[in-house]
Amino acid sequence: MRVDLNCDLGESFGRYTLGLDEEVIKYVSSANVACGMHAADPTVMAQTVRLAKAAGAAVGAHPGFADLQGFGRRNMDLAPAELHDLVLYQLGALDGFCRAAGIRLAHVKPHGAMYNMAVKNAALAEAICRAVRDFDPGLPILAPGGSELQRAAAEHDLPFICEVFADRAYQADGTLVPRKLPGAMITDEDEAISRVIRMVQEGKVRALSGEDITVKAESVCVHGDSPKALAFVQKIRAALLDAGIEIKRGGREND
Amino acid sequence: MRVDLNCDLGESFGRYTLGLDEEVIKYVSSANVACGMHAADPTVMAQTVRLAKAAGAAVGAHPGFADLQGFGRRNMDLAPAELHDLVLYQLGALDGFCRAAGIRLAHVKPHGAMYNMAVKNAALAEAICRAVRDFDPGLPILAPGGSELQRAAAEHDLPFICEVFADRAYQADGTLVPRKLPGAMITDEDEAISRVIRMVQEGKVRALSGEDITVKAESVCVHGDSPKALAFVQKIRAALLDAGIEIKRGGREND
Amino acid sequence: MRVDLNCDLGESFGRYTLGLDEEVIKYVSSANVACGMHAADPTVMAQTVRLAKAAGAAVGAHPGFADLQGFGRRNMDLAPAELHDLVLYQLGALDGFCRAAGIRLAHVKPHGAMYNMAVKNAALAEAICRAVRDFDPGLPILAPGGSELQRAAAEHDLPFICEVFADRAYQADGTLVPRKLPGAMITDEDEAISRVIRMVQEGKVRALSGEDITVKAESVCVHGDSPKALAFVQKIRAALLDAGIEIKRGGREND
Amino acid sequence: MRVDLNCDLGESFGRYTLGLDEEVIKYVSSANVACGMHAADPTVMAQTVRLAKAAGAAVGAHPGFADLQGFGRRNMDLAPAELHDLVLYQLGALDGFCRAAGIRLAHVKPHGAMYNMAVKNAALAEAICRAVRDFDPGLPILAPGGSELQRAAAEHDLPFICEVFADRAYQADGTLVPRKLPGAMITDEDEAISRVIRMVQEGKVRALSGEDITVKAESVCVHGDSPKALAFVQKIRAALLDAGIEIKRGGREND
Repeated sequence: MRVDLNCDLGESFGRYTLGLDEEVIKYVSSANVACGMHAADPTVMAQTVRLAKAAGAAVGAHPGFADLQGFGRRNMDLAPAELHDLVLYQLGALDGFCRAAGIRLAHVKPHGAMYNMAVKNAALAEAICRAVRDFDPGLPILAPGGSELQRAAAEHDLPFICEVFADRAYQADGTLVPRKLPGAMITDEDEAISRVIRMVQEGKVRALSGEDITVKAESVCVHGDSPKALAFVQKIRAALLDAGIEIKRGGREND
Repeated sequence: MRVDLNCDLGESFGRYTLGLDEEVIKYVSSANVACGMHAADPTVMAQTVRLAKAAGAAVGAHPGFADLQGFGRRNMDLAPAELHDLVLYQLGALDGFCRAAGIRLAHVKPHGAMYNMAVKNAALAEAICRAVRDFDPGLPILAPGGSELQRAAAEHDLPFICEVFADRAYQADGTLVPRKLPGAMITDEDEAISRVIRMVQEGKVRALSGEDITVKAESVCVHGDSPKALAFVQKIRAALLDAGIEIKRGGREND
Repeated sequence: MRVDLNCDLGESFGRYTLGLDEEVIKYVSSANVACGMHAADPTVMAQTVRLAKAAGAAVGAHPGFADLQGFGRRNMDLAPAELHDLVLYQLGALDGFCRAAGIRLAHVKPHGAMYNMAVKNAALAEAICRAVRDFDPGLPILAPGGSELQRAAAEHDLPFICEVFADRAYQADGTLVPRKLPGAMITDEDEAISRVIRMVQEGKVRALSGEDITVKAESVCVHGDSPKALAFVQKIRAALLDAGIEIKRGGREND
Repeated sequence: MRVDLNCDLGESFGRYTLGLDEEVIKYVSSANVACGMHAADPTVMAQTVRLAKAAGAAVGAHPGFADLQGFGRRNMDLAPAELHDLVLYQLGALDGFCRAAGIRLAHVKPHGAMYNMAVKNAALAEAICRAVRDFDPGLPILAPGGSELQRAAAEHDLPFICEVFADRAYQADGTLVPRKLPGAMITDEDEAISRVIRMVQEGKVRALSGEDITVKAESVCVHGDSPKALAFVQKIRAALLDAGIEIKRGGREND
């Protein structure tokens, strides 16, 4: 029994530092590394890849929209072909640093608005997965089960890693309760952790509507951008280990 | 007896079109493809790699400073470590499109101010060549013979391709006459072509001071950004072929 | 009887030249000048303001999304407060060049996706008009009659200039026929010109549904980005003058 | 007897926060506000102008090179005409927010590499001062006495505010001891403060060579980018007030 803990890393830019990368990397198994569009510059990328390698964490690509001011969180209306090229560019750019470090790109998880849009939009999901396949047909996609990204990954024969969220409530159909609805967030940390452990061990979670639903929990998304977030990562990691669950990368090994 | 004709390509950006890429690609053997910093966006890069592949031309990386407004032609004071990472980023980004197209990056030629600075500055040349070696130790550098780039390439055991210029006068020490000095430019097209043919056939060129000097002419830099430039490419190509000189890429083959 | 001819100008950037600015400026009365976000850099803006001043054309601000690659034509999901600040920034930036040239900003016309979104979205239109009022309460908005931009301009007591399109068909409610519908474009140049003259003289146009509708034609949008577009500007200008219609700026005078 | 305390503010960008702006603004009399090139976005600028207005601090323009990654600290080789336009753009952009807030731009202090280059380079200093004069001939320049910026300001009849540094040693000719030389930094806080008080009260400072030199201390540059820097601002402010020196903006009043 095992699960991956994935966390966004390398989101600093030039003079601007963001995130507690050097701390959080000790507790996670996979880093989603920004690729210079929504965050990161080449030097930040080089440092982040070295940091992840030293910590033994997997390096995944975290491509985003070319919107540094909006941190890739503002929806942008790209044609699928443009999106394909934008993702391919970022995969290659990060891979350069992986090659230099002697490691292998482990997975791909789109960032922010690109992720949220592609989860629901088949054409965008297809463009992203086609870019990944064009780059490397063995590179896994990390995204929620049941999403358009999962469907597109299957269509392109890409490996897929099912992501779950500790702090979000689920609907009966397995999708997340939208943030603006009441009950969308799981604010009690212990409850959040119990839910994750159950998802890993039993493949089930209690939906907001009260019934149990089936989920595949291969990777849990955690955050490292504040001391509070970091403390939660430490806590969930300890609880998972206590429950006999191994913390292990969901994506590819380096060889 | 053979020589490479190299030309900058893929310098359009978004709504902005630059260069007669679809024409000039027919006459050259190597394309130096912009990597999204001084010029080009991901879609332009994808199209340019496809265009070069279809024409059978080699695709080389043409990394530049992150200065789109200045087209990478304004000197910027980067630390060598920053330059290393900036070049590595661009090599990877372009390589993504090459992988998707099923071809191999053939060479690296820095662009504009980065090229001019690195030709003379050992620390910058070293940073560039180290980035290339970190990315792929078999990837050749295309630059003038006798430059710091040649020395740094040798230091890192990288293949090197000697570049000559048809329209520039040489000094007795083998370096170019600075543009601001009288006689720096060879403005007569026929004279320019004769000089190139002699450089390829005899390894010699008449310096501005009147004496013959030794040069290695493995690749000739040509331009495709105006109808006049394009006409010259056609003319020099025809003249080289007439002289029994084969036009062939200077960098790596695809396999 | 008079009308304004407005045209987007100053959309070059660095090494990239776009548009036949020096030609088209002779035939229009108002220039919508790009402000450095979707197009233009500071030097292009300085040159464009000088060019417009020399030609006696009004200089209007043409603010766009911060998306040079997409030329401001891709929808972006900005919060109204962000949009307000983005527009205010661009108004100030262009105004600096107007002050240096001794002229006064004559009007504001949003660009591309910002224009299209604000025409229909009340919150975005309000944010834009509030930015204009915060900057200068006497500065007119140039946009289609009946749009949310007209409503927001009225709400903020801003002068308003009704824009019409020579090459677009109208629906019975006075809005444009969407481009994707059949009959959306008026492709016959003579018909387009007759329609404009009638809009100016009679305040009426034949809708796609066949009935006459009332329109206020204070400014006609023309283009100068191709030789064909330029020829049309010359033709419509001549036809308007022949019909006894004066070509005159719709926005503010310089004093 | 009075002096200005000036501090760089508004250097955050999008998701990235930099500086303790809300704290340090309470203790300084002038804010040098970033204009969207080396730092800041339109929303940060709007917030910073409001913050400074509420605190009663003067808002000065702090134009920098268009190099967000390098935070405007990397030398860039711009032609004087390009620099003129780049500065004019930023003056206008910030002025838009000042107009919206109902305050007046109080001074101009170039940032980082632009400041350091212009202090010594007459052509760059002239380009900057010409941009300021073209924008508003009554707008003061804030820079070191004896610099090329002072000379250029005089040439263009611009008001000038002499800036001194608490933490830097001076040479006998009144210029700063270069940072790389021993003794360049005044590391003892009490000594730094005594020196500033003497500069304000007596117009003299002990040079590194041991002799007293004459300096005009109209504005003291302080920093607010760390808790330690903030503590020093509080300390120097208290010491100046204790010495009977008023803390008052060096630039223009709002009316």
